Amino acid sequence: MNIESICIVGLGLMGGSLGLSLKKLYPDTTICGYDHNEKHKIDALNLKLVDKIINSKDDIMACDVIFLCIPVDAIIAINKELIGISKNSTIIDMGSTKEQISNEIPASIRVNLVASHPMTGTENSGPLAAINDLYGNKTVVLCDTEKSGIKQLQIAEEIFNKLNMNIVYMDSISHDKHAAFISHAPHAISFALANSVLNQEDHKSIIALAGGGFKDMSRIAQSSPAMWEAIFRQNRTNVLESIECFKNELTKCQDMIKEEKWEELKDWMGKANNLHDIL
Amino acid sequence: MNIESICIVGLGLMGGSLGLSLKKLYPDTTICGYDHNEKHKIDALNLKLVDKIINSKDDIMACDVIFLCIPVDAIIAINKELIGISKNSTIIDMGSTKEQISNEIPASIRVNLVASHPMTGTENSGPLAAINDLYGNKTVVLCDTEKSGIKQLQIAEEIFNKLNMNIVYMDSISHDKHAAFISHAPHAISFALANSVLNQEDHKSIIALAGGGFKDMSRIAQSSPAMWEAIFRQNRTNVLESIECFKNELTKCQDMIKEEKWEELKDWMGKANNLHDIL
Repeated sequence: MNIESICIVGLGLMGGSLGLSLKKLYPDTTICGYDHNEKHKIDALNLKLVDKIINSKDDIMACDVIFLCIPVDAIIAINKELIGISKNSTIIDMGSTKEQISNEIPASIRVNLVASHPMTGTENSGPLAAINDLYGNKTVVLCDTEKSGIKQLQIAEEIFNKLNMNIVYMDSISHDKHAAFISHAPHAISFALANSVLNQEDHKSIIALAGGGFKDMSRIAQSSPAMWEAIFRQNRTNVLESIECFKNELTKCQDMIKEEKWEELKDWMGKANNLHDIL
Repeated sequence: MNIESICIVGLGLMGGSLGLSLKKLYPDTTICGYDHNEKHKIDALNLKLVDKIINSKDDIMACDVIFLCIPVDAIIAINKELIGISKNSTIIDMGSTKEQISNEIPASIRVNLVASHPMTGTENSGPLAAINDLYGNKTVVLCDTEKSGIKQLQIAEEIFNKLNMNIVYMDSISHDKHAAFISHAPHAISFALANSVLNQEDHKSIIALAGGGFKDMSRIAQSSPAMWEAIFRQNRTNVLESIECFKNELTKCQDMIKEEKWEELKDWMGKANNLHDIL
């Protein structure tokens, strides 16, 4: 498919890394970037994450494909401003929640949207966090694709295939439930773990002992509060439910330790070991 | 210092990796291995983790330095059997708990013991999990060193320095409190996270979406139940306390989401971000 121009809205880790990959995969396409942060625009140009920066809504709307790599509340807001976009244009949002984004885009441009969630990232943010091949060999979930135009879906699939991603299809309600368990609750847990250690009087002596396990478990506690507030807000019910399920398991563990049920505790840990046969 | 022979008791991940390093660092020393598991002995020899396998308590006690790389309950048990060991011998245990090990070794051989905890490892176990340089650039905690003989402490320090480890000194009570926060509770959390996902009816679809965050958070849920049961048992009070502190933080997070206190939630996540300035 001939794509003349792609605009990436949001030049942080996700958008910036996408720019790096698209510039290689689509050498004949103009990769444009938009960001509301002036410094991000300059950094993105200096780092050659995009070919050029554009500054107006009209310029964004003139692109064949528009990737939205911004917080999930900003995705909903910008979608409302894209009313009147050409029926040939494709909007691909990359938000970590899908139900509200899929439902709240104005009906007249719903066909333009392919609601996607690439299951990749790092704990870092901003254009300087952009890395090569962030997307390769990762899974991307496409949601409610029956609501996307045929052409739009084809374009999105073509791009994700070129990025060497594994495409999974799912309705947005299931996605949001699953994402709460596999991504959103783990972020809440990591933030809580970091804070529980920082709350200790002698936290510096404690942290000095950190090995690989703790470093892994607290890595995503470095994630952007603004981005995660919006995710927790949009997926509030599912996030609360998945945190509750996790807490129930942890309470089980506590109770077994408290009541010295060591055989039961071993069985429970042995069950957890099974995860890695599936993962 | 001239060390003629070193015995590694327990040829799993920790002991096996130690063998690999010691064979390089001490080419003129005989590195002996002992394991109660016959297959581990054969694997360790085949993988050249040690120079030779020894099979009797007398052979173990005849070595200049004895490393105990076995579960923490087994360390306590074997220490009781080492009564009568030469006053020139050094026992270095590598257990993840320190208070009981430091206190329960028979008084007559307490000077022989250097109670240590290397803050390193992987989620894997057994001789096949042994890797090169598991110890380099990692922290090792030495506890209650005033109870160790001068010679024994010097030997332990020399070996850990040769392994290129960062030595930290601490009383065993503080160690066990700190280790509960930085290592033991995170393991309980990881096991609970794995089980909370496995409990879901559609866990396979959920796990198919796992990105780097979940993989990191659940990595140590693959750890050995037998090893961790003994750690949770020996450090029961501290582990329960640190899990409780963590749960309080997570409940705070839940409450902020439930009550839609988004600004407060952002501040709380921002606080967690600070961890990485220290880590």
